[in-house]
Formats: sequence, C-alpha cells, structure tokens
Amino acid sequence: MKFESLKGFRDFLPEEMAARREIFDRVENVVRKFGFREIDLPSMEKMELFEVKSGEELVDQTYSFEDKGERKVTLIPEQTPSRARVLASEKSLNQPVKWYSTSKRWRYEQTQKGRLREFYQTDVDIFGADSVEADAEIIAVLVETMRELDVEDAVEVLINDRNLVEEVLGKEGIQDKREVMEVIDDREKMSRKEFLGELEDIGLDRGKAESVEEIVCISGPLSEKLRELERLVSGDAEEELERMKELKGLLEGYGVLGTVKLDMSIVRGLDYYTGLVFEVFDKKGELRAICGGGRYDELVELFGGEEVPAVGFAIGDAVIEELMRREGVWPEEKLKTDVYVLPVSKSVRTETTEIVNDLRDEDLVVETDLKDRNVSAQLNYANSIGAEKVIIVGERDLEEGKVTVKDMESGEEKLISLEEVVEKVK
Amino acid sequence: MKFESLKGFRDFLPEEMAARREIFDRVENVVRKFGFREIDLPSMEKMELFEVKSGEELVDQTYSFEDKGERKVTLIPEQTPSRARVLASEKSLNQPVKWYSTSKRWRYEQTQKGRLREFYQTDVDIFGADSVEADAEIIAVLVETMRELDVEDAVEVLINDRNLVEEVLGKEGIQDKREVMEVIDDREKMSRKEFLGELEDIGLDRGKAESVEEIVCISGPLSEKLRELERLVSGDAEEELERMKELKGLLEGYGVLGTVKLDMSIVRGLDYYTGLVFEVFDKKGELRAICGGGRYDELVELFGGEEVPAVGFAIGDAVIEELMRREGVWPEEKLKTDVYVLPVSKSVRTETTEIVNDLRDEDLVVETDLKDRNVSAQLNYANSIGAEKVIIVGERDLEEGKVTVKDMESGEEKLISLEEVVEKVK
Repeated sequence: MKFESLKGFRDFLPEEMAARREIFDRVENVVRKFGFREIDLPSMEKMELFEVKSGEELVDQTYSFEDKGERKVTLIPEQTPSRARVLASEKSLNQPVKWYSTSKRWRYEQTQKGRLREFYQTDVDIFGADSVEADAEIIAVLVETMRELDVEDAVEVLINDRNLVEEVLGKEGIQDKREVMEVIDDREKMSRKEFLGELEDIGLDRGKAESVEEIVCISGPLSEKLRELERLVSGDAEEELERMKELKGLLEGYGVLGTVKLDMSIVRGLDYYTGLVFEVFDKKGELRAICGGGRYDELVELFGGEEVPAVGFAIGDAVIEELMRREGVWPEEKLKTDVYVLPVSKSVRTETTEIVNDLRDEDLVVETDLKDRNVSAQLNYANSIGAEKVIIVGERDLEEGKVTVKDMESGEEKLISLEEVVEKVK
Repeated sequence: MKFESLKGFRDFLPEEMAARREIFDRVENVVRKFGFREIDLPSMEKMELFEVKSGEELVDQTYSFEDKGERKVTLIPEQTPSRARVLASEKSLNQPVKWYSTSKRWRYEQTQKGRLREFYQTDVDIFGADSVEADAEIIAVLVETMRELDVEDAVEVLINDRNLVEEVLGKEGIQDKREVMEVIDDREKMSRKEFLGELEDIGLDRGKAESVEEIVCISGPLSEKLRELERLVSGDAEEELERMKELKGLLEGYGVLGTVKLDMSIVRGLDYYTGLVFEVFDKKGELRAICGGGRYDELVELFGGEEVPAVGFAIGDAVIEELMRREGVWPEEKLKTDVYVLPVSKSVRTETTEIVNDLRDEDLVVETDLKDRNVSAQLNYANSIGAEKVIIVGERDLEEGKVTVKDMESGEEKLISLEEVVEKVK
C-alpha cells in the first residue's frame, strides 16, 4: 500500500526546513526589535468565532467540522479572531499590546500557485493604540521585514486610508460609500469600462463614476499624491490628510518612505478595516499580494470586549517564497555538521563515544557511525551531511594516544593527541 | 457575546510563550548537537495513515472528520506515521536519517492533568540504523535533554528490550508471549494478585505466572540487573544480553548510565516496537510518563516502503511542564526590552523616531510611545515591559543636542549627546 499526503499540504525535509527556519528567524528578529512579543493561540476554535467577523461565506472556505462532542469547530484560517477573543476577556493587559506569532493556518480552497491548504503565517499586531505612530510602526516593521528578506527593491507597499477615501467620495457627492468601496476593491479584475459600468449599476451617474475612477487612479509617491489630493478636496478631509502627512513624516524618520506609495484603489474589501489599509505587491505584478493589513479599531468590541484599537498585518509563507525564488534570494540551505567522528573499527567504540561526547559538550554538532560502516562509506556520509572536520579514530593511532583530524574542505590531515583534540577542533 | 476557547486548548500570552520557547530551544539545542535535523510535516493526513498502525480504536481518539471533498482526514496525534509515509516514498535519503520536529499534535480525549486536546510534541528519530550505537544515541540525547531541562535528578529512564523479554519468557516455557506482554503492559494498574490472576486467565499455570512476575520485577541499575538476568537464563538469550551489555558500555561513554535503569516490566503495549523500549518516569511517581520510545524496525515497511530500521522517542510539553514546575525549574520569563525611548512631547517625534530607528539598527529591542502618553504613564509602561534603559527626549535637552538616559535598575540618569547616545546605550 502506498500513502500520499493531502493535496495542498507540504512535507519539509531538512534542507527545505532549514531554509524556512532561516526565513522565519529573519522575520522574527525584525519584529522582536520593534518590541513585538511572541504568543501562541489554539489551532482550532469554535466555529462561531469566525462567523462573527467573516460571515458564513468565508467560513465555507475553512476546515470546519463537528467534533466528537458535537461542537462545531474550525481550524483557524487566520489568528485575528482568536486574538480578539483573548483581548475581549483579558482586561489586565498593559497596552499597547504588541504581538506576533508564526504558525500554521488552514483554508479549504482550490490549491494553486501561492494558495495552499496548509500554510505558515506571521501575524503582527498592535492593540490598544489608535495613534498614527502605531500606524507608522506597523508599516516600518513591514518594510524592515522585506529588507531583511532581500526583497525590498522588488516590492512596493501600497497604503491608503479608508476614512480618506470616504471623505473624498463624500466630497464628490457620493452617498453609498460602502457599495462604491466594494466595487473599488474588485477593480483590479476589471477593465476600465467594466469598472465604470459596475459603478453605474449601483446608481452612480457617468460623471460621478468617472470621478471615482479618477480618485482610485491616484497612485504614487506619498508627498506628491498628498498634494494632488489636497487640490482635489480643496479644504475638506483635513483631519485625514493631516494624519497621512504625519504618517509620511514618521515613515521618513524610519527610513522606509521610499518603499511606500499612496494608492487610492487599495481599500481591502473586508468590512472591518477602519482607517489605514495597505498591501504589499510584487513590482512586476506577477504574483498575488504578498502581505496585507490595516487598522481595525472595532474588531475587539465585536467579540464582546471593550473598544480596543488595533493595527496589524499578516504575511504567509507561500507567495514570499515564490518572490524570493524568482529574485534569486531564497536561502539554499545545505546540511551542516561541525565534526564527524569516524571509528575505523568496532574496537575503538569507547574512545569514539568519549570524543563525540566531549565535542557535543562544547556545543558542536557532531555525528558518528551508527551503521557499522567501513571508512570510505563513513567518509561519504560525512560529506553528505556537510561535515567540516572528520576525526578518524584508528587502533594504531590510539596506541600512541592520537587521532587523525581531516579538514574536509582542504583535505589536509593532522595527527593530534587525544588530550588536545577537543581544544584543537573547537 | 462572549467567546471562549475550546476545552483542552491553550492560549499562550507573551510571558508563558517565552517560557515555552525557552524549553523548546533547550531541547532543540541538545538534539541539534547530536546531528538531528529539523523537519516539518503536515498537521493533517488521510485517516487511513493512522489506521495502518494504530487500528480503529486509537483513531477514535483523534480529531478525524470528512473534509469538504469527502476525504476522511485526521489531525495528527503523532508524527511517526507521517515520517514513515515520507520514508516509504523518498528512496534517495542518505541514511541514517536523523530527524526532529517540535510541533502541535491533537487528540480527542477527556482532558485532565497532563492530557490536553492540543499539545506540543518533540519527535526525535533515527531511521536506517539498526545498531546498538543508534539505540545508545537515542537514550543519550534523551538523558541530555532531561539534563538541560534541569530534571535529570528527578527522573529515571527505564529501559528494556522486548526481544530479551521474549527470550526470557521462552526460557520459562511460555508460548503466548504476545498475550503475556499485553498483561505485563497493564501491570502498573494492577495489584500483584490481579496480575497473577490475569496471567492465569490467559492460560499460564500458577508457577509460570509467578515466574513472569519474578521477571517483570527485575528493575535496577543496568550492570547489576544484567548479571541477575544472566543467572536466570543461564546461557540463553546470549545475543540480547550481549546487545544490552554493549548498550551499557556506550551509555557509560556518553556519561548517562547513572540515569538509566533496566526495568523488565517496560514493554510498551503498542505492538510495533521490535527491540529497545524505554519510558521516562518522575522518580516520585506522581506524574504520567514524561516520554516514551523505542525501536520500531518494521514500521516503514508497513507503510509500503522497504525495511527501514528506526529508533526514537516523543516528548510532549504538558507533563514535562508539570514536572519542571513541581521541581521549581520552570523558567519564569518576564518581558525584556533593551530601551524605551520616551518623547516628552509630540514636538520631538522626529528625533525620537530617528533614535528608535538607529537603536533597532543595532539589533536592540526598542519600544517607544504609541499612545501619546505623559511622562509618568510612559515610565510605567517602560517598567511593565522590563525596559533596561529609558532615553528621555525633551525639547530643552534637544536644544543643546542632548537626551537623558535613565538606567531603570539603578535609577541613575545621565545627559548624553545625540551623536553618542546609540554608541553609549548599546
């Protein structure tokens, strides 16, 4: 009988896992410097937790089932609802609460490039701060992350403010802002004609539809586009423009402004965003969005807590891997081993074990023969695990209290006394 | 509306997570030194994968359900079947294959002390080596792990060899070895009388039942108990005794023999073990088994592969946490922050952001105000996140190109010039 893994689920063997671990480490090192703290929440929650925020449609795309105690449960597709659950019940947390977590998430949907059924995701959130400083910190940590992954130049971070969009739409005399925003959210998939048609379908006249189109086409460097917007709204939306300007100043201070663009078409369909929204795109436009996020000040309340403002983002491992591979910056990790200790015969086992043990005590990664192999088979194995040095333990050398140390890169061999070998090798 | 997490699932907030991360890091540092490599396999597999090894009864204790594509799937309760699946299909792996993984597992069973529905488990295996050296390495890495967790003195590692048990039972003229082993496996829960009764129930006469009882009572230091066994079997079971003696020598070489005992009652019920078996117990006998493992040379074949000998163990996070807490060695982690940069007013934001940014560039963990708070509220927050230093950025100091650096432990404050502050603080 042959067994296969489920479609959309991945096996990571050591070299692939080492690459992934390297990526996670880089991301986490950045977020830790910003003062985010690691948390971990359940992989499974009651299904109702996801219905609150997402409605039934999205729950349909999750792994949801009835457990043996007849509870409806869901494998988490994202961690935000769980975080909201915790925040709604833990009243004593010192705000701002800055959390990150890299863990697995699941979605039941058609698998395709960049879309898997099981994936890793890093969630980064600030809870309890509605300030523009918090917005800036979230964008700064995101850009820094892209920098650490060597893809800053390959991406752009498109930001927007939903309040600003609403103000500008209002200024244009548009009432059904929410409906218009939904159309804007779908714009990417439409031609200009289709876009205008959709806007007319929801009741905008041609002139207003064209105004909306003009607005959502605003996309470019923050300073420049802010001036453009100011002219467009002439005196309105002051508060929103002021906040955006402050954001610009802070991003400049963080040294990340160059990677950030204002793009009025970014609204992020999900209704729960309340201010800043952003997405990270591959500049070449070949890949799905790499990351998305924004401000969602009303979410925790929805889960029965007090109002807790929040801003954050989530980044999955699938699309960023595609991007990094395309850019040639995905880490190709090989197995590495500090020392392989090679017993020439069974008779030198005791000495071999002692050397192995002493070297591991020095925190070196050490392997030895577990298969009673001959010298050349052992050297092949040592090579396959990337051993830097091989210590050859032979009977005759041992009689003189010595072992041979072979440098696997240079091929150089040296006789070293047993007493000195640990000191010399480490 | 109030939401709760599912029973048997845990939320880990930052301090608890930091403790857990510390534990995982210690465990993984040990296993890495032994040359084990990290892998990661799916959290979900086809249910049939678990039926092969465990039968339907155990599958009943898992989270198994039908997915939306009508596949019967299971959230993994352990990683061994998945590992066997990979080994059965990946023919090109360089043996020995030494794998570890710390990840989540799920079981649907009554929650109680030490038994949760979601838990972390570290699996450590050597595949492709049937040698006693591999057995020794597995026990050595396990004892080293207990040492790193500061519980070596609180536990004992009870080892046995199922082949040895079978030989000894054979010597006593017992035919139904498997049935007898099942009774032995349940012995812990029985009185002596019940144990003898059960053996008689499966057809042993009183004399043989008492012989079995005598055998399973053999428990103690390896050298001593080996001599006892040798007398008992007088000339039989030579191969098994020889292997156990070699194991003893190797464990001595690894410096772990003192923590290991031979215990003939350890057979580990699951049928698939083929030689060495072991369990780690709390010496005080208050807790469940902390860890279990052994050799299972026939498992990979069962999954459609070639024969691949295997030896390994799994250790969950729940019981070890109980033990470490009882022994007072569970790490109580507090939030730590290198620097909190405190803007006295909104007007010094730009300079604050720059200092924050420069310090983070030096890989320091740095936080700043995100809530427009006054000085004393900020100092309270800095305290709550364990800030070592606070840099106070005030308008007047800034006019002289200076900031105040406060050491939070000593309370000492110093005026330092802006140019020097990063250098001085790091």
